[in-house]
Amino acid sequence: MKNNRYIVIVGCGRLGSHLANQLSREGSSVVVIDKDAATFNNLSPDFSGFRVEGDATQIVVLKESKLKNADIFIATTHEDNVNLMVAQVALKIFSVPHVLARVFDPKREEVYAQLGIDTICPTSVAAEMFLRAVANGATERKGLQA
Amino acid sequence: MKNNRYIVIVGCGRLGSHLANQLSREGSSVVVIDKDAATFNNLSPDFSGFRVEGDATQIVVLKESKLKNADIFIATTHEDNVNLMVAQVALKIFSVPHVLARVFDPKREEVYAQLGIDTICPTSVAAEMFLRAVANGATERKGLQA
Repeated sequence: MKNNRYIVIVGCGRLGSHLANQLSREGSSVVVIDKDAATFNNLSPDFSGFRVEGDATQIVVLKESKLKNADIFIATTHEDNVNLMVAQVALKIFSVPHVLARVFDPKREEVYAQLGIDTICPTSVAAEMFLRAVANGATERKGLQA
Repeated sequence: MKNNRYIVIVGCGRLGSHLANQLSREGSSVVVIDKDAATFNNLSPDFSGFRVEGDATQIVVLKESKLKNADIFIATTHEDNVNLMVAQVALKIFSVPHVLARVFDPKREEVYAQLGIDTICPTSVAAEMFLRAVANGATERKGLQA
């Protein structure tokens, strides 16, 4: 697997910036898009990728991020509708081979899957971990993270 | 492990209601506290626990939920400060043996751990899963949930 993949991330909040920092550190070329430039402060000083200030639901902004060259597209905004829309555009119009999206409403996961979009639902994941922690009781204090 | 544990959950949003429904279904006695009664609509029809409408940062509300009898306390609100505060109260004042809290800011996890509170950070967990999915490429489409 090549390490210098071209990755476009929409949303530079906690999740988006964490992914951008980590993937950039691992050697990938990363572009982060956010309509609020202040969120770029979440990027670490050694982030070597690009920042695009703009609304990712506008094609011109996605073009500016050179989305057609991307190996991977990740939608991490706080709005399921935005994530679904930009993920579809990345998949269908820009033919990005691997498209992932955060989805808050677990009921939407099936729709995304049918559209060919990988989804990760923090609520479902967290619920699963809480239930496991409750089941295991106090035996496994700490280290609950994946 | 006994199944009929007494569990108090603060916050009846997506995460809180999911946990309440599941734990109730498994046979535990569940009390859910939320200051917005409308969130109780998230509970499934077969939820057999109790609903307490009120602000969990007020001792009187926690007393109403019979917190001193609880085996497990879970704070799931969207505010880290609220979760930290009620979790501490559950642990120190009501001596609940197992206290868990959702925390959005990963930087706070260490503080919680030092206070004896189990934490689960959906952002960290989701980030971990995204990174794993990206690393694995398109080979493991779907089924990304824990």
